[in-house]
Amino acid sequence: MSTKVAIIMGSKSDLNVMQDAADVLTELGVAYEITVVSAHRTPDRMFSYARAAADRGIKVIIAGAGGAAHLPGMVASLTHLPVIGVPVKSSNSIDGWDSILSILQMPNGIPVATVALNAAKNAGILAAQILSTADEYLVKNLIDFKENLKKKVEESAREMEGE
Amino acid sequence: MSTKVAIIMGSKSDLNVMQDAADVLTELGVAYEITVVSAHRTPDRMFSYARAAADRGIKVIIAGAGGAAHLPGMVASLTHLPVIGVPVKSSNSIDGWDSILSILQMPNGIPVATVALNAAKNAGILAAQILSTADEYLVKNLIDFKENLKKKVEESAREMEGE
Amino acid sequence: MSTKVAIIMGSKSDLNVMQDAADVLTELGVAYEITVVSAHRTPDRMFSYARAAADRGIKVIIAGAGGAAHLPGMVASLTHLPVIGVPVKSSNSIDGWDSILSILQMPNGIPVATVALNAAKNAGILAAQILSTADEYLVKNLIDFKENLKKKVEESAREMEGE
Amino acid sequence: MSTKVAIIMGSKSDLNVMQDAADVLTELGVAYEITVVSAHRTPDRMFSYARAAADRGIKVIIAGAGGAAHLPGMVASLTHLPVIGVPVKSSNSIDGWDSILSILQMPNGIPVATVALNAAKNAGILAAQILSTADEYLVKNLIDFKENLKKKVEESAREMEGE
Amino acid sequence: MSTKVAIIMGSKSDLNVMQDAADVLTELGVAYEITVVSAHRTPDRMFSYARAAADRGIKVIIAGAGGAAHLPGMVASLTHLPVIGVPVKSSNSIDGWDSILSILQMPNGIPVATVALNAAKNAGILAAQILSTADEYLVKNLIDFKENLKKKVEESAREMEGE
Amino acid sequence: MSTKVAIIMGSKSDLNVMQDAADVLTELGVAYEITVVSAHRTPDRMFSYARAAADRGIKVIIAGAGGAAHLPGMVASLTHLPVIGVPVKSSNSIDGWDSILSILQMPNGIPVATVALNAAKNAGILAAQILSTADEYLVKNLIDFKENLKKKVEESAREMEGE
Amino acid sequence: MSTKVAIIMGSKSDLNVMQDAADVLTELGVAYEITVVSAHRTPDRMFSYARAAADRGIKVIIAGAGGAAHLPGMVASLTHLPVIGVPVKSSNSIDGWDSILSILQMPNGIPVATVALNAAKNAGILAAQILSTADEYLVKNLIDFKENLKKKVEESAREMEGE
Amino acid sequence: MSTKVAIIMGSKSDLNVMQDAADVLTELGVAYEITVVSAHRTPDRMFSYARAAADRGIKVIIAGAGGAAHLPGMVASLTHLPVIGVPVKSSNSIDGWDSILSILQMPNGIPVATVALNAAKNAGILAAQILSTADEYLVKNLIDFKENLKKKVEESAREMEGE
Repeated sequence: MSTKVAIIMGSKSDLNVMQDAADVLTELGVAYEITVVSAHRTPDRMFSYARAAADRGIKVIIAGAGGAAHLPGMVASLTHLPVIGVPVKSSNSIDGWDSILSILQMPNGIPVATVALNAAKNAGILAAQILSTADEYLVKNLIDFKENLKKKVEESAREMEGE
Repeated sequence: MSTKVAIIMGSKSDLNVMQDAADVLTELGVAYEITVVSAHRTPDRMFSYARAAADRGIKVIIAGAGGAAHLPGMVASLTHLPVIGVPVKSSNSIDGWDSILSILQMPNGIPVATVALNAAKNAGILAAQILSTADEYLVKNLIDFKENLKKKVEESAREMEGE
Repeated sequence: MSTKVAIIMGSKSDLNVMQDAADVLTELGVAYEITVVSAHRTPDRMFSYARAAADRGIKVIIAGAGGAAHLPGMVASLTHLPVIGVPVKSSNSIDGWDSILSILQMPNGIPVATVALNAAKNAGILAAQILSTADEYLVKNLIDFKENLKKKVEESAREMEGE
Repeated sequence: MSTKVAIIMGSKSDLNVMQDAADVLTELGVAYEITVVSAHRTPDRMFSYARAAADRGIKVIIAGAGGAAHLPGMVASLTHLPVIGVPVKSSNSIDGWDSILSILQMPNGIPVATVALNAAKNAGILAAQILSTADEYLVKNLIDFKENLKKKVEESAREMEGE
Repeated sequence: MSTKVAIIMGSKSDLNVMQDAADVLTELGVAYEITVVSAHRTPDRMFSYARAAADRGIKVIIAGAGGAAHLPGMVASLTHLPVIGVPVKSSNSIDGWDSILSILQMPNGIPVATVALNAAKNAGILAAQILSTADEYLVKNLIDFKENLKKKVEESAREMEGE
Repeated sequence: MSTKVAIIMGSKSDLNVMQDAADVLTELGVAYEITVVSAHRTPDRMFSYARAAADRGIKVIIAGAGGAAHLPGMVASLTHLPVIGVPVKSSNSIDGWDSILSILQMPNGIPVATVALNAAKNAGILAAQILSTADEYLVKNLIDFKENLKKKVEESAREMEGE
Repeated sequence: MSTKVAIIMGSKSDLNVMQDAADVLTELGVAYEITVVSAHRTPDRMFSYARAAADRGIKVIIAGAGGAAHLPGMVASLTHLPVIGVPVKSSNSIDGWDSILSILQMPNGIPVATVALNAAKNAGILAAQILSTADEYLVKNLIDFKENLKKKVEESAREMEGE
Repeated sequence: MSTKVAIIMGSKSDLNVMQDAADVLTELGVAYEITVVSAHRTPDRMFSYARAAADRGIKVIIAGAGGAAHLPGMVASLTHLPVIGVPVKSSNSIDGWDSILSILQMPNGIPVATVALNAAKNAGILAAQILSTADEYLVKNLIDFKENLKKKVEESAREMEGE
C-alpha cells in the first residue's frame, strides 16, 4: 500500500490535535506520512516539500496550523493536489478565529478544503473520501465507518430511553 | 464525458454565487449537473438526491447555502462522497458568519470541505482537484490553470512597475 | 397524563445540559420523553422520529445540539410542530457562536424557537407555556413558577439589605 | 375568530420588518392585533399591555425590537404567555448583534422564543404553530404552507435543471 | 451624610463583582444603599424601586447585570436620574458580549452610562464624579484618589527600573 | 447661564454625529461649548484643554471619537470631571467595534461613561442628567423630555392601531 | 536617492488602497518601488523577490493583502528586513477581520508590523520612521509632518469654535 | 553599547508578557531600558517620557498595554520615533479584542507597528530589525536567529518522521 496522504503541521505542538488525522486514516486503511513543515520558520522546506509531493505519489495533503496559519494556503499555492486545512486552536490563537479565517478565506484560484477548528479527524476522513472517488475498497470502509457512527448513537439512544 | 460533479444550492437566489462553480468546471473540462435542493423546504428531495448521487456516478457534491446553512452538512451525512460546502452571504445572513459557521463546524465523523465565503469558484477548482487524483488529464488542466493565474499577476506586475 | 413534549439531543454528551429541560418539565407537571437523535450520524432516525412525532401525540419538540447544530432546524423542516432549539456550548463549539447561529438563523418558512446558550431550562418552560395556551392547569403552574422566582429574589434582597 | 396573537414593536420604524408577521398570520388564518409598545419610552404602557394580554384572550405575543432590545424579555417577565422575540436590524444596531443577544440571552426562568434577525415572518409562523397545538384547522393550514414552500423549490429546481 | 447612590444588581451572584462599587464609594466618602432588583423576576419591584428612587433622595443609580441585561436600561426608562450600567460577565454570558451590548446600545432618549465589563469600581468612581459636580469635598477626594493611582504606578516604575 | 458642558471630538468629520449632543443640550436648556481636540494630532492641546476645563467652570465633558478612540479615556485621565464617551462609527472604523472597545474598556480607576455607537444625543441627555443632580430646573426639563418621548410613542400606537 | 522602501501588494486591485503608502513616502522624501507580488498565485516570484530585497538595498518592505492575507507574513519569513503589513478590506474579505487576523497574528519569531485596516498611509509613515532611525533629514520631515497634522486640527478647532 | 530601545508597559502586571521583549533583545545583542508608564494613571509621566525619548538616544519604543490600551498610540502621538505596540491579554480584557483594536486601529498620520496578542517577543525582534537597517552587526544576529528557528523545526521534523 503506497503512501497517498501527507499530514503536515506548522509546529510539533500541533501534534496532539493532528494525531487524530493519522489515527482515522489508519482506521480507514489509508497509508500516510507525517511531519513538521513550518511556513514561517522553514519556508524553503515548505517549498520543496509541497513542490515534490505529487511526484512522490502523494494524492492529498492535510495541513494543520494555528494563529496566522499560512501553511495550508501556501502549500495549496505550490501544488495542484487537493489540500485540506485544519485550523488549530493553538496557545497563541484568539479563540481559533485567526486560525479559521487565515485558512478558510483563500482567494479565488487557490482553494483550501477547510474543516472545523481542531477537527483533524474530519480531515483524515475527507482525505479518505477524496481517495475513495477512485478506490472501491475505501468506499466500503467509509460506508462501514458511517454505519458504526450510527450504531453508537442508536446505542446511546437506547440507554437514554431506558433510563 | 460522464457527469461527476453535482452542484446544488438551497435557493435559486444562490445561483448568482454558485454559477462560478459551474463556470470554472467548464473551464477545467469537468461535466456537472446543477439544481436546487433545499434542506429545510424539500427535506425528502434532499434525502433522495444525496442518497442516490453515488449510484448515479456522481463523485463530488458541491453544496452552497446561506444563513443557518444545513444543506452541505446534511448531504454529507447522507452520502460517503466528499462534499464541498460554499457559505453564501445571502440577504438573510449576518455578514456571512452564520453561513460559515453552520457549514464549517461539523462534528467529528462527518466532514464538509468548506471554502471561503461566496467562493464557489474555489469549490469548482477543489472538485476538479479531487477528481484529478485519478485523472491525469485534469492534472494537466489544473497545472495550466495555475500557470494562467501566475501569468495574469506577472502582467499586472509589469504594468505597475512600468507606471 | 400523555407525553406531549419530546426532548432530543444530538449527542449523549449534551445530556448534562439538556437534563435541565426534563427537570423543569417535571416541576411544571408536563410529561416528556427524552432520547438521542443525531442529524449527522442518524439522519434516517431523525427523519422517522420527526415525521412520526405529531401522530404519536407529541405537541412540542425540544432539540439541543452544538457546533454546526442542524438538528433543531432539520426537525423543524420535517414537522409542523413547534420546535424549540437549545444551542449547546459543546466541546467542539467556538464559544457557542456556531451553535447559536446555526440554530437561530433559519430561513423564512421554517422557524426554530431559539433559547439562550445552554438554556435548556428555558426550553422546558417555553414548552410548558406553549402547552398552556390550551391547558389552564399549566397556566396556574406557570404563574406559581414565576411567583417562586420572585420570592427568591425578594429573599436575596432582604439578605443583602440586611447586611 | 377572536384575536389570539398580539404583535408589538418598540418603534413604528420597526413596522417595515414586523409587517411580515402580520401578513403570514393572515395567510395562515390567524387573527392578530398590532401596535407600538416601547419598553424604554412607554414602560407603563408596556406593563399594563403585557399584564392585561392574557385576560383579553391573547395566547401568544410577538415582540420585535432593535439595538438594546428589551421589549421581548420584559414582556416575558410580565406574563405567563409564550413570547416570540424578533431581533430587528434597526438603524442604531451594530449589524444586528446587539438586537440578537439582548433578546436571545434571557436568564433561566424567563424564556423568549427568539427567531432569526428580521425574521418576523417566522415569528408569525411560530405563533401559528403554537396555536395549532390545540387547533386542528391551523395544523392543516401549516401543512399546506409547508407543501407550498416545497412546491416553489421544486419549480425552481425544474427551471434550473432545464437550463 | 444622606444616601445618594443606589447600587442594584440583577442577581445576588453579581455581588462578587458589584461589591467593588460599594468599596470605592466608601473609600471616596459617599454613602450608598445596595440590594437585589431583578428586571425579569421582580419587574414590579424594579418599577417601584426605580420610580421612588429620586424622591428618596437618591441622585445616581448603579445597576449591574449579565446576559440579556435589561436592568440598567429599564431603570433608566423609569427615572430621570443618571443610571450607570455595569455589564457583568455572569456564568450565562457569552464572554460578556451580551452583557455589554444589551446595556450599552440604548436607543436615543434613554442613556445608560456604561462602564467596562465587570468594572463596578469604575461605576462607583463615576457616581462620585457625578455627585462631585455639586460637592467640593468630593472633588478633593477624587483628586486625592487620582494622586494615589499615580503614586502606585510611579512606585512600580521605580521598582522595575531598579531591577 | 454659564457654560457647564464641553463637547469635544477627535476630528471635524465627527461633527455630523456630535451635533446631536449640542442640539439636545439646547433643547434641555444647557449651555455648552464645542470644539475639535485630537488626542493623536494635538496631544498638547488635549492636555491643556482637559487640565483647564474644571477651572473654567466646566462640569461635564462629552468626547466623541472613532477607530482607536483614545480621546475620551485620555481626557478622563487628565481631569476629575465626569467624562462621557461617544463611540463614533467613523470611516476608518471596523463597524464601530474598535470605537466602542477603545472607549468602554477603561481600566479600573479611570471611568468613561460610554453611550451607544453614534449616540451623541444620549451623551447630551446624560450630561443634563448629571447636572440635574444639583439643578431642579433641569430635573423638570428632563421629566418633560421623557414625557414627550412617551407621547410620540402613544401617537404612533394610535396610528398603527387605527390602521 | 537610492530606493529603500518596497511596496508590494497581492493583487492590482489593492492599488487603490496601497497608493496612499506611495504618496506619503513621496511627501516625506523617501524613494520607493511598487509592484504586485501574489503569495498564492506567484509563490516563486514572492520567494525570489523577498530573498533578493535586502541585497538590492531595500531596507523596509510594505506588503498589503486582503482575505487570507499571507503575503506580509510569508515575506517576513523570507527576509530579515522589517516588514510592514497592511490589511486590505478587499471585496472577498469579511469586513476586514480575515485580513487583519491573518497578518497580525504571526507566531513568535517572525513579526509583521501591522497597521490599521486599509491604513497604507500609516505604513508609509512607519517606513519613514524606521529609516529615520539612521537619517536626520527624515527626522526633520517627520517632525514637520506631525506639525502639519497639528495645524490642520487647530484650524478645524478655530472654525468650529467660531461657529 | 548605548540603550536604543525603550520597553514600557501600562501596568507592572504586564511584565510577565513584556519580559519576552527584553529577553529576545538581550539574545540579539540590543541594549534596552524597561519601566512602567501608564497613559491613564500617569499621563504627565507618559508625556515627558515620550517627549524626551529621542533626545536620550532612544531609537525605538515598545509599548505594551491591555483593555482600552491607549499607551502605544499616545506615545506615538508624542514622538517621531517608531512605536511598536503589544496588545496584552490582561485580566480585564475581552479575550484580547479590546487590546488589539485600541492599539491597531490608529488614525492616518500616527502609526503604531502592532504585533500579535501577547507577542512581546516579536516586538523585540521587530525593534532589532528596525535598528538593523543601519547596523550590519544586528543583521548578522537576525540571520542567525532565523537560522536557529529553522534548525529547531528541522529537528522536530526528524523526530516526528522517525516515530
